[in-house]
Amino acid sequence: MTLEPAAAPVPSSSQDGSPGAEVVRPALSDPEYRQGVIELLGLLGAGEYLAFERLVSEAALAPSLSQRVRIADIAQGELGHFHLLRERLIEMGADPDEAMSAFLGPLESYHRMTAPSDWLEGLVKAYVGDSISEDFYREVGAVLDEETAALVLEVCSELGKTAVVIEEVRAAIARDPRLAGRLALWGRRLLGEMLSQAQSVAAEHDGLAALILSEQVSSQIDLFGLVERLTAAHVERMTALGLAA
Amino acid sequence: MTLEPAAAPVPSSSQDGSPGAEVVRPALSDPEYRQGVIELLGLLGAGEYLAFERLVSEAALAPSLSQRVRIADIAQGELGHFHLLRERLIEMGADPDEAMSAFLGPLESYHRMTAPSDWLEGLVKAYVGDSISEDFYREVGAVLDEETAALVLEVCSELGKTAVVIEEVRAAIARDPRLAGRLALWGRRLLGEMLSQAQSVAAEHDGLAALILSEQVSSQIDLFGLVERLTAAHVERMTALGLAA
Repeated sequence: MTLEPAAAPVPSSSQDGSPGAEVVRPALSDPEYRQGVIELLGLLGAGEYLAFERLVSEAALAPSLSQRVRIADIAQGELGHFHLLRERLIEMGADPDEAMSAFLGPLESYHRMTAPSDWLEGLVKAYVGDSISEDFYREVGAVLDEETAALVLEVCSELGKTAVVIEEVRAAIARDPRLAGRLALWGRRLLGEMLSQAQSVAAEHDGLAALILSEQVSSQIDLFGLVERLTAAHVERMTALGLAA
Repeated sequence: MTLEPAAAPVPSSSQDGSPGAEVVRPALSDPEYRQGVIELLGLLGAGEYLAFERLVSEAALAPSLSQRVRIADIAQGELGHFHLLRERLIEMGADPDEAMSAFLGPLESYHRMTAPSDWLEGLVKAYVGDSISEDFYREVGAVLDEETAALVLEVCSELGKTAVVIEEVRAAIARDPRLAGRLALWGRRLLGEMLSQAQSVAAEHDGLAALILSEQVSSQIDLFGLVERLTAAHVERMTALGLAA
C-alpha cells in the first residue's frame, strides 16, 4: 500500500503506550486501501441489514406486544445504519448493492445456524452478536482514515443499545437458575459460529483481508491478539450475566 | 348511543347525494362511542404492527438486496403508524398494549393462512391487504369524530404506498403470462381470508361491532353494501393488474 505524500499526521490511537506517537492515517486516494474500505463498509452494511431483518423476525417470539415493539424499535435503528453505510458507499462511487450483497452468503449462514428457539435465546443472540461486532469494528475503525473511522464509530455507538434488553435475561435467570446452563451453551455456540463465519469472510474477500493485514492497520492493532481479546470480552459479558462462558 | 348536546354540526361526508346535508359527528365523551374508537384504533394498530413484521419477513424472499430494502423501508412506515396509534391510545387514557393485543389472534391467523410462497405472492399480498384495509378505514374513518378521523385518514394515506411495488408484478406477468392464473387465484384467496377474519373480529369485539352498527355510523355508511364495495374495488385492482379476479 502506498502512502499519500500529503497525508497529514494525526494523533495515534494505537495501544503501544507512547502518548506522543503520531501515525499517518491511510488515505482513500490509495486505490488498494479504498477497495478495502468499500469491502469493510459492505460487510458492515450487509450485517446491519440482516440484523434488522432477523431482529424483527425474532421479535415475533416475544411474550407480549410491548416487548415485541421494543425489539422492533431497536431493529429500526439498524436499518437506519444500513442506510448511512449505503449512502457513504454511493458517495465513494461504489455500487452499494454489489458491495453489500457480496457478504450476504456467510452472514445468512450465520443466522441460519443460530436461529433462536425461544425469546431468551433471541435476546442473548442480539446482545452477543452486537457486542462482538462492536468490539471488532471499534478496533479496526479507529485506525482507518478519519471519515471512515467517524462513520464506523457512529454505527458502533448504536450497537450497544441491545445491552438494554439483556436485563430481561438476567431477571429470567434469577427466577429460574436452570436456564443458565442452556443459555451459557448458546452463548458459546454463537461465539463459535461468528468466528467461523468471520474466517470464511476474510478468506473469500481479498480487499478486506488486505486492509486488515495492511501495514497501517496491522502496525496499530495486535492482530494475533484480536480473536483472543474479542473472546475475553465475550467471556466477561457472559460472566456478568451469570452465564459460565 | 347518546349525542353530545354541544357537538357542532360538521359538513356531511355521506354518500346520500344531498350536498347541503349536515351531520353531527359522534363525540368521544360518549363512553360507548369512546370504547368503540379504542377498539378500532387497537385493531388498526395491531394490523400495522403485524404488517410491519410480516413485510420484513417477506422481504427476505426478494431476489436482490435493493428490492429487499425497498420493502423494509415501506415496512418501517407501518411501524411509524403503529407508534402514532399507540400514542393516541395513551392520550385517550387507554392501555395500548391491551387494546392492540386483543386483535393479534385473528390477524396472526390471517397471516399464517396467507404466508406467500415466493416474492411475487408477497408483493401481491402487501398490495391487496393494504388496499382493502385502506378502503375500509377510509369509509369508516370519515364519519368518526374529527380527531379520530384525521388520525385514521393519515394512517390510510400511507397504506397506498404499497401500490408502487405492484409495477414489479405487472412486469413479471408481462414477461411470463402463465403467472397470471396462479396470482389471480392467490388474490381471491387473500380477499376470502380477509373477509373471513374480519367477520370473526366483529363477532368477538362488541365495542367495535357497536361502533360500526351505531346509528351515527350506519346512517352514513351503507353497511350492507360495504363488503360488496370492498370486493368490487379489489376486483377492479386485480383486473388492472392483468389478473382475472
